Amino acid sequence: MENIKVISYGMGVVGGFIAKFLLEKEGIEIVGAVDVAKDKIGKDIGEVLDLKRKVGIKISQNIESALQETKADIAVHTTSSFLKDTYPQIASILKQGVNVVSTCEELSYPYVSEPELARKLDALAKKHDATVLGTGINPGFLMDTLVITLTSACEKVEKINVTRVMNAGTRRVPFQKKIGAGLTIEEFQKKISEKHITGHVGLEQSISMIASALAWKLDKIIVQSAEPVIAKKTVESKDIRVDAGKVAGLKQKAKGIMKNREVINLDFQAYVGAEEEYDSVTIKGVPSINQKIQPCVHGDTGTVAVVVNAIPRVINAPAGLYTMKDLPVPSATPEDLRKYLRSA
Amino acid sequence: MENIKVISYGMGVVGGFIAKFLLEKEGIEIVGAVDVAKDKIGKDIGEVLDLKRKVGIKISQNIESALQETKADIAVHTTSSFLKDTYPQIASILKQGVNVVSTCEELSYPYVSEPELARKLDALAKKHDATVLGTGINPGFLMDTLVITLTSACEKVEKINVTRVMNAGTRRVPFQKKIGAGLTIEEFQKKISEKHITGHVGLEQSISMIASALAWKLDKIIVQSAEPVIAKKTVESKDIRVDAGKVAGLKQKAKGIMKNREVINLDFQAYVGAEEEYDSVTIKGVPSINQKIQPCVHGDTGTVAVVVNAIPRVINAPAGLYTMKDLPVPSATPEDLRKYLRSA
Repeated sequence: MENIKVISYGMGVVGGFIAKFLLEKEGIEIVGAVDVAKDKIGKDIGEVLDLKRKVGIKISQNIESALQETKADIAVHTTSSFLKDTYPQIASILKQGVNVVSTCEELSYPYVSEPELARKLDALAKKHDATVLGTGINPGFLMDTLVITLTSACEKVEKINVTRVMNAGTRRVPFQKKIGAGLTIEEFQKKISEKHITGHVGLEQSISMIASALAWKLDKIIVQSAEPVIAKKTVESKDIRVDAGKVAGLKQKAKGIMKNREVINLDFQAYVGAEEEYDSVTIKGVPSINQKIQPCVHGDTGTVAVVVNAIPRVINAPAGLYTMKDLPVPSATPEDLRKYLRSA
Repeated sequence: MENIKVISYGMGVVGGFIAKFLLEKEGIEIVGAVDVAKDKIGKDIGEVLDLKRKVGIKISQNIESALQETKADIAVHTTSSFLKDTYPQIASILKQGVNVVSTCEELSYPYVSEPELARKLDALAKKHDATVLGTGINPGFLMDTLVITLTSACEKVEKINVTRVMNAGTRRVPFQKKIGAGLTIEEFQKKISEKHITGHVGLEQSISMIASALAWKLDKIIVQSAEPVIAKKTVESKDIRVDAGKVAGLKQKAKGIMKNREVINLDFQAYVGAEEEYDSVTIKGVPSINQKIQPCVHGDTGTVAVVVNAIPRVINAPAGLYTMKDLPVPSATPEDLRKYLRSA
């Protein structure tokens, strides 16, 4: 059987991590790459990824030319968090009958913020016999798929609390900037109001996916603005120093409300100096379940894993738009990726 | 839409728990019940379940008459751990085109110990347009489905360790007897050799399901015999007292070996006086994942939950034999059970 052929659409930080991993992975090969950045177009992906070798694949400016030159099975798409921005890109892939797995956060459960685009993507995918899935470590796994899975051991579910606490001191610099580490409170608030800091994108999607799995009709979802976490003492790590009184990062909460009760609470915290890093799920129900992953799952590594592990599942799935909860139980794919294809 | 109609096949301890829960549950009704015990046949299930009310359903001696009298959508089957014993029972249900969810431990992943019976069940199910699934809290969830799900956050998986530790002092008396609590060591060994104590049935199935999900070809699976856990001091709980030096319960290990390496280790412990009760999954890989559910999930409640939550998924699935890893991500079903049917 031939290798799975993939187009890498988006060669930013996450797209780069995924591409590097795919280049090492058995059973799959990158046959095309796309990015809009002027300093990347036309370059070999080996150069862009700092691999010290040429891969033989040049970065195209647009997906159409990449699709015309190759016969891809799937595109790994990593350009933006918002479906309004990514819809035309994803649509153009689907129109060629090519499957898509995307890290677009809104696509992980698009029926809430973009129901019309979700409907159109599903129709396009079915028309052109392709499958599309939005996923990643979060949204896509830690605050939704894993939570849903854990509820399956419960006869009754009254309330779900999910917390993710990350020590940003151990993460890459762009992530630290994204959460405002090192800023004054005023600078942080300005960046929030100007939407240069957006907080975590995906809380609304994760709550909606959990509620849909449980057949809960929520009255509303409240996504609070990201708030600064202030460093109580000066903290220093590999790449960053945050003085006491400055912003160490952010925290953000979201709630799903049903019949005047908070039934789903998500609590996201990412700041330099967090002493305990964990992902926890607490289900109040029959039985109650207290689950904790400690330390928390690394965001970038986890996203590479969840996305690549989804590739054979997306190829195996019938045509249409899916979310993680609709596909078979996810798993790692430590062997040759072709072994996970249904035809294998 | 009419209620989902279920036949309760097996009115022992677990079947009784499930039936009680189903009688309270919206969207489903028990339309028939089967058991071979002479003291149950002909009695109303309300009487057998100590409900202090009649339900209007009498316990039949055989499944054929129960199936003839009703038009069931699914049978919940809870008679035995071994597929050799349950095969004719399950086959007779499938032949009527009725779906089956069973707690038969070997059926949770039947391709290893009973590949021929698995093949026949799949063929029968497809011929009669029915679906069959073996599940429960363990095997079915804690030591397999949940483990597989957690691996999906990993790029690489080297080794998996799963541990379940239960304090049998808080469980029902039949469970305490099943694990040998209160026996002398000699009595325990005698019961093991006479197969009155079997240990946990399902370790081989859980290992096989994990390996299959990861496309790992194991060289062998070693299931050790159950060993007694000896009480170091006298322990006493609600229903039982175990003197120091006597058997408090049992522990049992199983290993999956690939290329001379232990790649999957399951460790099951159930004894009176266990101070810490938990379910843990440790994945050595990229990233490594350390997960713990504390306290452990209660076995009976968890099995009721996993089985009932599987009912709509089994009805929704195409015809054939499935294991948990093949079906969509499992979830709780806290609302009317019909809301989880695809047609709903």
